[in-house]
Amino acid sequence: MKITKTERPLILVTNDDGVHALGMAALIDAVSEFGDVVAVAPQVSQSGMSHALTLKSPLRLKKIKEQKGIIVYELTGTPVDCVKMAFDKILPCLPQLLVSGINHGSNSSISSIYSGTVAAAREGALNAIPSIAFSNTNYADDADFEFTKSYVKEIVKNVLAQGLGKGTFLNVNLPHLDSPTIKGIKICKQAEGVWVEEFDQRQDPMGTNYYWLTGYFNNAEPDNEDTDEWSLKNNYVTIVPLTIENCDHKEVVNLKHRFK
Amino acid sequence: MKITKTERPLILVTNDDGVHALGMAALIDAVSEFGDVVAVAPQVSQSGMSHALTLKSPLRLKKIKEQKGIIVYELTGTPVDCVKMAFDKILPCLPQLLVSGINHGSNSSISSIYSGTVAAAREGALNAIPSIAFSNTNYADDADFEFTKSYVKEIVKNVLAQGLGKGTFLNVNLPHLDSPTIKGIKICKQAEGVWVEEFDQRQDPMGTNYYWLTGYFNNAEPDNEDTDEWSLKNNYVTIVPLTIENCDHKEVVNLKHRFK
Repeated sequence: MKITKTERPLILVTNDDGVHALGMAALIDAVSEFGDVVAVAPQVSQSGMSHALTLKSPLRLKKIKEQKGIIVYELTGTPVDCVKMAFDKILPCLPQLLVSGINHGSNSSISSIYSGTVAAAREGALNAIPSIAFSNTNYADDADFEFTKSYVKEIVKNVLAQGLGKGTFLNVNLPHLDSPTIKGIKICKQAEGVWVEEFDQRQDPMGTNYYWLTGYFNNAEPDNEDTDEWSLKNNYVTIVPLTIENCDHKEVVNLKHRFK
Repeated sequence: MKITKTERPLILVTNDDGVHALGMAALIDAVSEFGDVVAVAPQVSQSGMSHALTLKSPLRLKKIKEQKGIIVYELTGTPVDCVKMAFDKILPCLPQLLVSGINHGSNSSISSIYSGTVAAAREGALNAIPSIAFSNTNYADDADFEFTKSYVKEIVKNVLAQGLGKGTFLNVNLPHLDSPTIKGIKICKQAEGVWVEEFDQRQDPMGTNYYWLTGYFNNAEPDNEDTDEWSLKNNYVTIVPLTIENCDHKEVVNLKHRFK
């Protein structure tokens, strides 16, 4: 990583819906007033790719847009590959901020572990960069991101000014409602529960079975007003602080008694 | 999920090196004395796939082995897909234990977030199944797993008898040494640090650049004897308890003051 300092804050943008998704265009539009933007995003959709890396095939990188203060690259990899490539080969210095999204579809609850959008922000936090994942509850390709732009700006401005604690990154979900109906920003914990699979079994023309992964989130605490799920349903913009730490320190003590 | 109860404990086995890896054969061999084994593993290597799901292409499932007490399936998906498919379409009831591995290569430190082997165990824990990921520091396809078998059995026996705390799963790493040299089992925390990328840039015969992801782990606490990295290097079998929880609860409080 070269250490040339940029004049304005350097902001790295990525997503998991692919470089041409409207959600990323909306995010670039929202953050570009705060700094110089470099976007490095997957060539094609990488939904559900979590923190995956591409180890078995080579990556190809292409600059697809350059205008004053905004440069956009596409990479034939995952969101986390994009962040790593930006750090190693593209950026002139470490960015002051990483933003990922805006995802078409929510990434709330404990299920955010499956999200490539959230993983990109985690990768930023692993590298000590203040990082924020943004998702919108509307899955449509042509979802309208305009009415939540002011909230995105408010959160970005706050994090650029005050940073984030070591190892912490933010998972932001935006409700799909017109602005006057949104009740404001709410800091939440992630809802607990479990994703229940219902693989959809079909038969190809050769008579062989194949399966599509489908399912639903079974919320274990639907009435808990502290959770992102409840708050999203009740028209709040939700922020859940996540941590890169996943060691269960209290179990370290318990297990020492079991393995002597 | 059907609720037919099996007579012996039902043990789900998976991995990320693919269904034909020697490490999984060694794991099946080690656990089969404790219960009936169903293995559902990726058709091909899925190293570095983390908690990824396959959402954009259909999955194909095939039973490739059946003998008394051991059934093996291959799936054209990720390790987490395998666990989900087992729960939804294959197992007669929820298993008493999930074991993943034995991975060819270590999955230690905070870098275990990239591992498909570890993610499969996390998926078990998300479904309240006691789950253990096993990895061996030897990356070779023909690594010898025989001399660590007694440690695998000891850990499995302990977890089958006493279970694990809610939301906790185990990340076990086995050093690549002959048994007399191994100092025993040590409960650890995961080493902190960061994976430093060094993309290897090459040119294809058409003159276009491509990149291979490479790098190294920069251990921030190489002398900390409580960490898995130090302990592995010093010939211990390491167990790190991990948690499915990744909400940063203390930051919830801090952030409430920043967004009012």
